[in-house]
Amino acid sequence: MRVIVVGFGVVGQSFAKLLLSRSADLYSQHGVKPRIVACVDNKGSAIAPAGLDLQRLLDAKKAKDTVGAYEKNSSKFDPLQVIENVDAEVVLECTPTNLSDGEPGTSHIITAMRTGKHVISVNKGPLALAFPSLIELAGYNGVMFRFSGTVGGGTPILEFAKRCLKGDRITSFQGILNGTTNYILSKMEEGLTYESALEDAKKKGYAEAVPSLDTDGFDAAAKLVIMANWVMGMKVTMKDVKRTGISGVKVSDVKKAGERGNAIKLIAACDSRRLDVAPTEVSKKDPICVNGTLNAVTFSSEHSGQQTIIGRGAGGMETASAVLRDLIEIRDTIFER
Amino acid sequence: MRVIVVGFGVVGQSFAKLLLSRSADLYSQHGVKPRIVACVDNKGSAIAPAGLDLQRLLDAKKAKDTVGAYEKNSSKFDPLQVIENVDAEVVLECTPTNLSDGEPGTSHIITAMRTGKHVISVNKGPLALAFPSLIELAGYNGVMFRFSGTVGGGTPILEFAKRCLKGDRITSFQGILNGTTNYILSKMEEGLTYESALEDAKKKGYAEAVPSLDTDGFDAAAKLVIMANWVMGMKVTMKDVKRTGISGVKVSDVKKAGERGNAIKLIAACDSRRLDVAPTEVSKKDPICVNGTLNAVTFSSEHSGQQTIIGRGAGGMETASAVLRDLIEIRDTIFER
Repeated sequence: MRVIVVGFGVVGQSFAKLLLSRSADLYSQHGVKPRIVACVDNKGSAIAPAGLDLQRLLDAKKAKDTVGAYEKNSSKFDPLQVIENVDAEVVLECTPTNLSDGEPGTSHIITAMRTGKHVISVNKGPLALAFPSLIELAGYNGVMFRFSGTVGGGTPILEFAKRCLKGDRITSFQGILNGTTNYILSKMEEGLTYESALEDAKKKGYAEAVPSLDTDGFDAAAKLVIMANWVMGMKVTMKDVKRTGISGVKVSDVKKAGERGNAIKLIAACDSRRLDVAPTEVSKKDPICVNGTLNAVTFSSEHSGQQTIIGRGAGGMETASAVLRDLIEIRDTIFER
Repeated sequence: MRVIVVGFGVVGQSFAKLLLSRSADLYSQHGVKPRIVACVDNKGSAIAPAGLDLQRLLDAKKAKDTVGAYEKNSSKFDPLQVIENVDAEVVLECTPTNLSDGEPGTSHIITAMRTGKHVISVNKGPLALAFPSLIELAGYNGVMFRFSGTVGGGTPILEFAKRCLKGDRITSFQGILNGTTNYILSKMEEGLTYESALEDAKKKGYAEAVPSLDTDGFDAAAKLVIMANWVMGMKVTMKDVKRTGISGVKVSDVKKAGERGNAIKLIAACDSRRLDVAPTEVSKKDPICVNGTLNAVTFSSEHSGQQTIIGRGAGGMETASAVLRDLIEIRDTIFER
């Protein structure tokens, strides 16, 4: 299978490393032999119809901060040109998430679908802002659209809901979908103020310099939108989410909750009518009440009760493993046709 | 699809109720129209090639404690005769678990496979004692063998491992697989002695009059064997498990563990070489450390890290929903062929 990788940050590079380390067993166990035939970042591009040498690609990126350094005198193509003109079965979109207008990811995905390529996105922006229309576009063009890595990192939250609860009906779900805010709230439980917990999260590399995406609940809201569409069949976007961040949570609130045997968590909840992201008191005995950077989601279904799935919500290699699952699924579906 | 139900206890009856309440949406959403064409319990049988009237079947069982009362003057057939002679696609084996010799379940399953019928088992005995040979027999006869309800009740632990982590390699797992012992240990944490916690569990209906199956770790060991075979591809049976029950756990042990921020749990663990069931100290911050009758399993995989799945491990309707998932999967696979 030929793959075009658009964006070559942590996830893109982890995916290349994963392919390097697992090419033998991927072929023997799953019959998959992925080749990256093109790779584009914001400074350049590398193209090789027979498949790029992944070690050389990683080295070029490391040395010169662009995949454009893969060949000495390569022409520079922009992502849209590459997606449109290079022959491939799959486009992997992993440019940074932009929740304002979804670009450049949305244009990449649309161009890929329009030219008949299956799409795997780890970029949440296009999905959070335009999930219903992207699904429709994929159907119209007869291509598959997968995005396991957008929710839960390597933790297969979307697959769990979609596959493991087949034959039952999920009536609601709620979860901790953002590891950074969960880390901050966990530290506040230990006595830190919001400000010092945030500083600590920045030092550890969990929070960005401008942390609003996490602390104001945008990231959790984006994941909630993706889950509501995929798991519950709702047709919603970011604007349908009622969102409150954690910056208003006081140490005294956390302490009072603790006295009741509870903790304050940034809970994203969906009950087929409403989408909410807000700091919420939950019992410490509830399986959803995880600490540190963990994510957790509890699904309630009609007949099989409540199930909780817990795992790390981020990490380059974990997210790359989700991309690989998507790729194997696309391959399996193509072969069944 | 025609189904023969063998054993009509809590799970069998819940399955009939589930079909009654969901026949419309099962057909519209999954294209499945299951008919129970025969039902056998230890006192009698009911047979109707066009499909039994499920409400009448449930009423007969309730009134006379046997499905033999479905028809006034019905002939009595034993399970093996029914399995062998009634035309059906699937046999649902839900007689009680017997971990000594696996009977009568093993004979039912073998007869079903030998006569070309797919098998769904919620009975752990045959699997715990003879998993490798039953899988081989199913392959030899070209039939499917499913057993989602044997581990985790309605919580799709087996499916999660098999489907959601596709493309990755599970290297080990550990879990709390028995709700009764977890309830007892949770009560001991609250200060009860082992004896009074066991009494309490009996009163609540969580423990049997002779509780050895749970308290000596047999039930957890049986589930561990099933998971090791299915998830890790090991070929093992009950005799390969090193098993210690919870009757030796003292309140003082639980207290001391508590002082270290830990709890004592009956942990079933598999690392591809060893199978162990034993009371084990785990951190209360570990997601696996659930209380009450909950079950929890943590899978460690090579690339996507650790994931924990938590849910109720028992319950008639929950287990029946697992049977329904198996049935839908069998139907889907038959249709794909």
